[in-house]
Amino acid sequence: MRIGVVAPARTVTQVSALRMSAFMALTYPAHEIVFHPQCFMNQGHFAGSDAVRASAFLEFANDPAFDAIWFARGGYGSNRILHEVMPQLAPAARNKTYIGYSDMGFMLGALYARRIGRQAHGSMASSMGVDDTGEDAGWVLGWLIDGDKRGLEPSLLTDRRPAAAFNLAILTAMIGTPWLPDLTDHVLMIEEVSEQFYRIDRMLFQLAHSTQLRGIAGIRLGQVTDVPSNDTEFGETLEQMMTRWCAEMGVPYLGRAGIGHVRANHVVPFGVI
Amino acid sequence: MRIGVVAPARTVTQVSALRMSAFMALTYPAHEIVFHPQCFMNQGHFAGSDAVRASAFLEFANDPAFDAIWFARGGYGSNRILHEVMPQLAPAARNKTYIGYSDMGFMLGALYARRIGRQAHGSMASSMGVDDTGEDAGWVLGWLIDGDKRGLEPSLLTDRRPAAAFNLAILTAMIGTPWLPDLTDHVLMIEEVSEQFYRIDRMLFQLAHSTQLRGIAGIRLGQVTDVPSNDTEFGETLEQMMTRWCAEMGVPYLGRAGIGHVRANHVVPFGVI
Repeated sequence: MRIGVVAPARTVTQVSALRMSAFMALTYPAHEIVFHPQCFMNQGHFAGSDAVRASAFLEFANDPAFDAIWFARGGYGSNRILHEVMPQLAPAARNKTYIGYSDMGFMLGALYARRIGRQAHGSMASSMGVDDTGEDAGWVLGWLIDGDKRGLEPSLLTDRRPAAAFNLAILTAMIGTPWLPDLTDHVLMIEEVSEQFYRIDRMLFQLAHSTQLRGIAGIRLGQVTDVPSNDTEFGETLEQMMTRWCAEMGVPYLGRAGIGHVRANHVVPFGVI
Repeated sequence: MRIGVVAPARTVTQVSALRMSAFMALTYPAHEIVFHPQCFMNQGHFAGSDAVRASAFLEFANDPAFDAIWFARGGYGSNRILHEVMPQLAPAARNKTYIGYSDMGFMLGALYARRIGRQAHGSMASSMGVDDTGEDAGWVLGWLIDGDKRGLEPSLLTDRRPAAAFNLAILTAMIGTPWLPDLTDHVLMIEEVSEQFYRIDRMLFQLAHSTQLRGIAGIRLGQVTDVPSNDTEFGETLEQMMTRWCAEMGVPYLGRAGIGHVRANHVVPFGVI
């Protein structure tokens, strides 16, 4: 398998790319990972201008020599190239798997909405750090290369309904736009990082009241990490918030999910596995 | 005129209420302002539970003895009572003006969507601080009581198209829900506070790509204040962001508006003035 890496949002370091390439050479020597030079570019907030990021994504997605696109990093920005790249995806883009999470939810959601390729929520190609066991990177590579299900979010092994996973802020930013996929009958998994409780509550309000998402089968909550402190305690726990908003939405709260901005960020293929 | 004050989001202090009552007694002695005791309650993040805040709003909105509801304060929470209060508004609620801004955009938007009463963006009833000239409070009272147009957002005096004004985060949180009013042919004014540029850009993306807002006449940008620093410079100015997203949306960027989380927060009646 040949895996292409692009960065539709923020830049990554050469060292993080070398670390992942070396890890893959050790664990999957018969397979290849190629970081597009665009990954290392830098312009303001982004890994190159919108045009540069769009062009790099189209180059790799439309290249039949790649079997998968593994997104390098999130951090904001992939939404800015959706209207440019989505209409230009060629047939070769349909025979690929796309994997990443966080800001890459914009890409995965837009691709899933158009049924272009196969999408999965999972750890990023630049995520391997120091003191890293490589477990989540191994989950992605094992699933991509061998179809290994050990890295899948555990509930997927028993609950056979279609699923999708998103960062909550990214999901809610797609609501009301043509980029949000139809998630009718899906188990929706959400995770969040660096958001105060009142902001999480506001996003859950939008999710619960969204006319587009009324048909989902239920919601699972992933890890919610690095919550900034606020001037007052919010007064509700995350479980209470989930229970209340799911009741208001009229869908079951299905409990926790093993995803998030954490090392144990499991793979969630979109749709049925 | 008899003005009722309720707090559908966060609590206010007795001293802020006394200050506004005293100011009004000095400047508009023939008129009355009544702070509902709910304004001073405190439960977690909010000025009382959802039920308590909903009940106080319904009590004053449905009371024919009040001519206007002046919201006390924003800060998050009015979205949580929309589904409870909107279906329970009685005929007396239709003969009122509702004024506030920021989180109160949820209330104003939902009321405007249902054409219940008259809505206006404007300074809040607890906004008067120390060293305060009372200018923005005077703008609200002058417009409410005498129809004085000196406190209106200046462009409204020459641009006779319908208008509406929202905090950007509140507006985007209503997108895709039944609470967002139809703003076709409206000049939309937006303002923001305490949001990093990448978050503002993400919200502008949602606004620009929203299918519900495609018909707006144009956008004006109010004050954007207290922007937290980020780890990198975003690389675009606010004017560049507005120009780019308005172009992508296909609507004119009409320039700045005199609204925001600032003292010079002008009145913007929803619809035509």
